[in-house]
Amino acid sequence: MRRVLLTVEYDGTAYAGWQRQINGLAVQQVLEEALSSACGHPVAVTGASRTDAGVHALDQKVHFDTDCSIPADKFPFVLNTMLPPDIRVQAGMEVSADFHARFLTSGKIYTYRIWNARHGSALRRNTHWHVPVPLEEAPVRRALETLPGRHDFAAFQAAGGTAKTTVRTLRSAELEIRGSEWILTVGGDAFLYNMVRIIAGTVAEIGLGRLEPDAFVRAFGTKDRLVLGMTAPAHGLELTKVFYPDKAFTDPAALRWHEEDTTCSD
Amino acid sequence: MRRVLLTVEYDGTAYAGWQRQINGLAVQQVLEEALSSACGHPVAVTGASRTDAGVHALDQKVHFDTDCSIPADKFPFVLNTMLPPDIRVQAGMEVSADFHARFLTSGKIYTYRIWNARHGSALRRNTHWHVPVPLEEAPVRRALETLPGRHDFAAFQAAGGTAKTTVRTLRSAELEIRGSEWILTVGGDAFLYNMVRIIAGTVAEIGLGRLEPDAFVRAFGTKDRLVLGMTAPAHGLELTKVFYPDKAFTDPAALRWHEEDTTCSD
Repeated sequence: MRRVLLTVEYDGTAYAGWQRQINGLAVQQVLEEALSSACGHPVAVTGASRTDAGVHALDQKVHFDTDCSIPADKFPFVLNTMLPPDIRVQAGMEVSADFHARFLTSGKIYTYRIWNARHGSALRRNTHWHVPVPLEEAPVRRALETLPGRHDFAAFQAAGGTAKTTVRTLRSAELEIRGSEWILTVGGDAFLYNMVRIIAGTVAEIGLGRLEPDAFVRAFGTKDRLVLGMTAPAHGLELTKVFYPDKAFTDPAALRWHEEDTTCSD
Repeated sequence: MRRVLLTVEYDGTAYAGWQRQINGLAVQQVLEEALSSACGHPVAVTGASRTDAGVHALDQKVHFDTDCSIPADKFPFVLNTMLPPDIRVQAGMEVSADFHARFLTSGKIYTYRIWNARHGSALRRNTHWHVPVPLEEAPVRRALETLPGRHDFAAFQAAGGTAKTTVRTLRSAELEIRGSEWILTVGGDAFLYNMVRIIAGTVAEIGLGRLEPDAFVRAFGTKDRLVLGMTAPAHGLELTKVFYPDKAFTDPAALRWHEEDTTCSD
């Protein structure tokens, strides 16, 4: 058996999320069916991030085992003829049998997109959260400056999160405004369940003046979910980039697996 | 009766184009049904551009007559509760009975988007034409420099174009490259049927080395459609902006109507 790592892009609009489930079609299931058919044996895949229903991915990383003879870099060509156009395999590479797409990640970047205009956008309806009231930029920028660093993000997770520790390192939290489009880019070592959507919801409520720019700092101190804003809708979220340490490819057995952020989707 | 001008955005993916027709659902029909229901009487609308099936619009301009009492600036709110989310009315304003959304335009901007990467994009599949072979930038930029100006664009129209004159003034033809995304923006006084899609197809073939950077210049001279490249697919095209002269709003009766570019979609 060989282990292969795929880079997969998907438009999450039509799917019940990444993870295979009883109700609704998951991206994982569609990919497993195409791979099983291409490889000629049942294939199970493991993704780096278990994205929720409606969440998109530009760079989901997925590993699977196979004994078929398709070269790793040919998988995109083979699979893209079988997959629906809202799922595209962008790359394939051979990895060692100890590689793991989820447990060996060293970081991820998520993008959250807001459409801040009176009326919703037809062309951006599936990728942007529509916030109809004008957001104020300065307090949002002040709040985002307080996010990066190593903090206890206990307040930044959905009820039911089962992470063993809630300490995470956020590397960056940046805002780009292009006309009506607010693009929030958040990078970190690992994320709690719904963490980015709670950050985006809090950003919006700070921009609306409903929360103060010190909301994030207060949440670090109090660990109180109620200090933060709403959980922003799933369809504004995109998994933009997944990182692995170099060792994941050269000597994965030497790395410690981290399972703390595996409660569910980030 | 009053005349009202709407600004309409739509994702053309699900529609058989702007213009009402027997086969397939047109954006015009969906809008007319919502307006008729809102106004309480049958409403017919006239759009600035008769976009083809799959073509998008950020700024379609649409006029209609009504005797209902809804203030013009309230139409977006009323209609957006009735329309499907892939059609959004962005603005409404009162115009005089002599205003005409199509015949009084003074200019339009179209955007054509290419996804230039080995594999297609899931998230951009409905808005970008996928060109899998790398395009070369320099010859494309040289070719685009030859486009602006007043030329006979006879070679730049689909067979069956019935325009009385094929002389047009192209004001700008610009290319922005962001990673795999090639964004072609073309502005002009008026356009022939399929003109922007023929420009985009020619740009791609010049970038691929199949046509020389002087293709546009040769087409002006020979008026030969075969000197140019293929007609690029509809789904990469967006009607980005429609312009009217100030007089269209203050004294439309004083303006000469131009019907030359009304053969069909631009």
